[in-house]
Amino acid sequence: MNKKLEAIRSKMKEYGIDAYIIPITDPHLGEYIPEHWRIIKWLTGFTGSAANVVISEDFAGLWTDSRYFIQAGKQLQDSGFELMKLKIPHTPEYIEWIINNLEKGSLVATDGRIMPSGIIEMMKKAFVRIGINLDTGHDLVSDIWEDRPAMPVAEAFEHPLRYAGKSRTEKIEAVRKQMLIMGADYHLLTSLDDIAWLFNIRGGDVKFSPLFTSFSLIKPGEILLFAKHEQVPEYLKQKLEKDGIILLPYENIYIELQRLKEGKSIIITPGTTSASLFSSIPANVDIIEEISIPTRLKAVKNDVEIENIRQVLIKDGLALSKFFFWLENSVGKVRITELSAADKLLEFRMEQKDCTGPSFATIAGYNEHGALPHYCATPETDVELKPEGIFLLDSGGQYYGGTTDITRTICLGQATKQQKIDFTLALKGTISLAMVKFPLGTKGYQIEMIARKALWDHGMNYGHGTGHGVGYFLNVHEGPQTIGTGASGDMKTIIEPGMLISDEPAIYREGEYGFRTENLILCAGDEETEFGKFLKFETVSLCYIDTSLIAKELMTQEEIKWLNDYHHLVYIILSQMLPEDIKLWLKGKTEAI
Amino acid sequence: MNKKLEAIRSKMKEYGIDAYIIPITDPHLGEYIPEHWRIIKWLTGFTGSAANVVISEDFAGLWTDSRYFIQAGKQLQDSGFELMKLKIPHTPEYIEWIINNLEKGSLVATDGRIMPSGIIEMMKKAFVRIGINLDTGHDLVSDIWEDRPAMPVAEAFEHPLRYAGKSRTEKIEAVRKQMLIMGADYHLLTSLDDIAWLFNIRGGDVKFSPLFTSFSLIKPGEILLFAKHEQVPEYLKQKLEKDGIILLPYENIYIELQRLKEGKSIIITPGTTSASLFSSIPANVDIIEEISIPTRLKAVKNDVEIENIRQVLIKDGLALSKFFFWLENSVGKVRITELSAADKLLEFRMEQKDCTGPSFATIAGYNEHGALPHYCATPETDVELKPEGIFLLDSGGQYYGGTTDITRTICLGQATKQQKIDFTLALKGTISLAMVKFPLGTKGYQIEMIARKALWDHGMNYGHGTGHGVGYFLNVHEGPQTIGTGASGDMKTIIEPGMLISDEPAIYREGEYGFRTENLILCAGDEETEFGKFLKFETVSLCYIDTSLIAKELMTQEEIKWLNDYHHLVYIILSQMLPEDIKLWLKGKTEAI
Repeated sequence: MNKKLEAIRSKMKEYGIDAYIIPITDPHLGEYIPEHWRIIKWLTGFTGSAANVVISEDFAGLWTDSRYFIQAGKQLQDSGFELMKLKIPHTPEYIEWIINNLEKGSLVATDGRIMPSGIIEMMKKAFVRIGINLDTGHDLVSDIWEDRPAMPVAEAFEHPLRYAGKSRTEKIEAVRKQMLIMGADYHLLTSLDDIAWLFNIRGGDVKFSPLFTSFSLIKPGEILLFAKHEQVPEYLKQKLEKDGIILLPYENIYIELQRLKEGKSIIITPGTTSASLFSSIPANVDIIEEISIPTRLKAVKNDVEIENIRQVLIKDGLALSKFFFWLENSVGKVRITELSAADKLLEFRMEQKDCTGPSFATIAGYNEHGALPHYCATPETDVELKPEGIFLLDSGGQYYGGTTDITRTICLGQATKQQKIDFTLALKGTISLAMVKFPLGTKGYQIEMIARKALWDHGMNYGHGTGHGVGYFLNVHEGPQTIGTGASGDMKTIIEPGMLISDEPAIYREGEYGFRTENLILCAGDEETEFGKFLKFETVSLCYIDTSLIAKELMTQEEIKWLNDYHHLVYIILSQMLPEDIKLWLKGKTEAI
Repeated sequence: MNKKLEAIRSKMKEYGIDAYIIPITDPHLGEYIPEHWRIIKWLTGFTGSAANVVISEDFAGLWTDSRYFIQAGKQLQDSGFELMKLKIPHTPEYIEWIINNLEKGSLVATDGRIMPSGIIEMMKKAFVRIGINLDTGHDLVSDIWEDRPAMPVAEAFEHPLRYAGKSRTEKIEAVRKQMLIMGADYHLLTSLDDIAWLFNIRGGDVKFSPLFTSFSLIKPGEILLFAKHEQVPEYLKQKLEKDGIILLPYENIYIELQRLKEGKSIIITPGTTSASLFSSIPANVDIIEEISIPTRLKAVKNDVEIENIRQVLIKDGLALSKFFFWLENSVGKVRITELSAADKLLEFRMEQKDCTGPSFATIAGYNEHGALPHYCATPETDVELKPEGIFLLDSGGQYYGGTTDITRTICLGQATKQQKIDFTLALKGTISLAMVKFPLGTKGYQIEMIARKALWDHGMNYGHGTGHGVGYFLNVHEGPQTIGTGASGDMKTIIEPGMLISDEPAIYREGEYGFRTENLILCAGDEETEFGKFLKFETVSLCYIDTSLIAKELMTQEEIKWLNDYHHLVYIILSQMLPEDIKLWLKGKTEAI
């Protein structure tokens, strides 16, 4: 018996609610949310990052996608919640359930502060046809959740110019210029990474990303920042004030939106704007639905950022080299598990200057665990690494000068023939994407195929995208650019010089092992011909790739050359800063094949 | 002085119209339109296939895309019309002109019968903001156009089961099944190719495509066909009646739409439904905007169609072989021009059984004319072919058993090194797409890159899509499938077994020459693995590729093998039906490289 569920049901009865919807977000609708807003985890025990819950009198279901079917199946046991398997990830299939199971005249409720306005509009349209009512003003959780974690209180801090590369006034000016082009009077910012970038502020409100809980509203001649005043230290308040930024209480965003002048226009991003914010905008204000301007601007790294990213990736490469050296020399001698390996890697990262922590929950998957693309070891699943088998390690760090994300898969014993084939075909994808040259104007989904082709040729494939945008001392996943066709991808975004993207083709053999080689690639200009401007990628991650897993006969001469050149670069750059024993070891690891 | 333009302006004055818009379509909004509706050609002299005209008191402009800049520049001379160059093809940029040049309170008018409903909606939204009025009830042309060609009167005819593969009742049943799944009560059909396919009827109302002017409305238990009764012969009337199809006068479509019952739903295709038809649908009928069901169904060829297509492509290959044999032996000896070559090819095609004519205006481009992707020789541009230089020939035929489309580029003398490089890089694209293997669920834009990669690697590219769907004894361009990202492409359509698509990478050197090798490829199933079902293409066009233009060192072993296998097949199949001299010649042309 889930007492929390029963408590919500009794609240529902009180208000005459027939179905209550709980999404897995917070008022900023981002990927990374503070504990205070992890309602679904508290209510159901499910710890994944994608889910929606619907509760009715005699039903309680949690919808999630195939990444989480096994995990949710276990975590929902005895929770009173039924696992509802999504046919298509990131879609509100629960709306269909509501339509099919509720009677005419029923009342559906949710908390509009944490529901995207687009979903609410979709529901309104669907419900009105069949006579179901929708009320978005219901927070049934706050009164029930007794030991609820407090709202974030971490102190915000300045992200100095030597890291940011551009001052907040420069950035605000650039945003205003775009607003002018788009004919917009106002711009509402809800994404915490947008605000952190624009104001050169970072915080500590969520795990893994240095985000600071806030909203912002850009108005003609005025720029408002909505945040808890106690989170902003005095020195930062003064700096913001000096730059003409008006700090207002966090909750005032709703009132300020209500005050917008009629006949004016506002840019909002439907996917990250809650129904409550949306409905606060007066009806006669013209809505321009677009990806936010800061999202587009910050995707293109400036020269200072690019230089810092290069430095950070050297640090990350040093930490990884030390880790893999340690692992190779320790496995089978001391007890190492998936979790302890992840801890050890973090230790090596934290030894590097300016590293503030991991950029996401490390995926350390031994053998069959490596076949789960989003595996996250827990004390219950943790296994010991032995001097045999395959170990996949996907990790990243937060540094003041950038965010990293890298995957290497290594063989701890002797690789089988099939393992070598699998590893090599996926690696050919990583290399092919790194080598691709393409005309300016090309979108991410137009070049993704090159990363999959070697696998497709052999009747193989992987079920996730090939590349995601990467933030700068911010979120490890940041759009709008993407190499793929996923729901998160924006089909209008072209790949531009200065964009930082992951390159991570993979192959997963269920119950056996997974292979993924992931590097960060930076888009740069190539030649200009009579056919136009061409672009290319530069691989900026620095870490050896396990050549004991390579079936050389499957690689082309160009691919072999790329790998040997890359390994030469890795050795040249990292070896200068490594102790003699690791340097010698790395020389072997990066030998030409 | 353009008297027609002045006559329209005086009509505009009469009705108080400040700007009049003329689109280049007919009431069916298709690519192929009868002479009766070629208003822009009559008014401006422009003969291209894409344009919009706007006339105001002191301005007259014709908007078209880069394919037509040179042609329109010439044809509009002294027409009173200014060439307005589209920045993005197939977009209504003239709306921007109207907004920028008309004052508040102005009246814009057009003929809603030939304007897509989507464009009208877009204009309404844009105009209401700035106080411009829109009236879609104005046909200012009919009264002025004195020698206007009559509405089409060609007799319709049955497309028999031995060609169609499925009876009209089977097809109607399949459409109704899809309507049920989509929850639709009605389905409006406006595209002539949809109607021709569904009813197994063909006609002769437009050049190049055997289309029959008609609308259709599918209702619960009733199916209506709107057409000129005199175009339908008695035997066909009886057959239609026997199959439960009710023939109504062409113009009755408007009345029948007005009679639709409230609360019901109707599927319409916004891109091919005129504003007049759209506005005839009662407001309380629920509109389902989707690509029409016949468009989706007919894109997947049935087994009888596939078998017929194979036979037709043999016939087409025989005609092409005879033509190229003749050309090679005659050029420099008798006078051959671009136009006479096209005529000669048509002669050879018409000798083949069941060929009814060309499927589009042949593109016969010698040297620099080949660099114009949509070049169409006219007596003014026509040039003589000599035993030197490059000749690009893009042509197709209509047969009862299928529609063909093929491009070959041949060298009439000695190819230069650069020509060989250019030809080979584009040919690598044609071959790479033909060889690609991809998982079920893949969309056309996801595999297009493979056709461009060899060119991109060398800083080269082409400015059109890579592949279009091909009809069956219908339009040579038929969606919804496409290999590319063009405006005509539907981003939701996956490539399915049975789809027939063109494969036509190219390279154009302005002022010099163009290379394009185009084959039709048929999608078919490949293996099914633990990673899912995979698909492949089969190249079904049969004609030798000029190996004297190939730089073999640029090709991979797989590409060379593909080419040699293809040439072997071309020879084996065609040689049986060719006279001895051509057979011997073809043996040389198809020799392994």
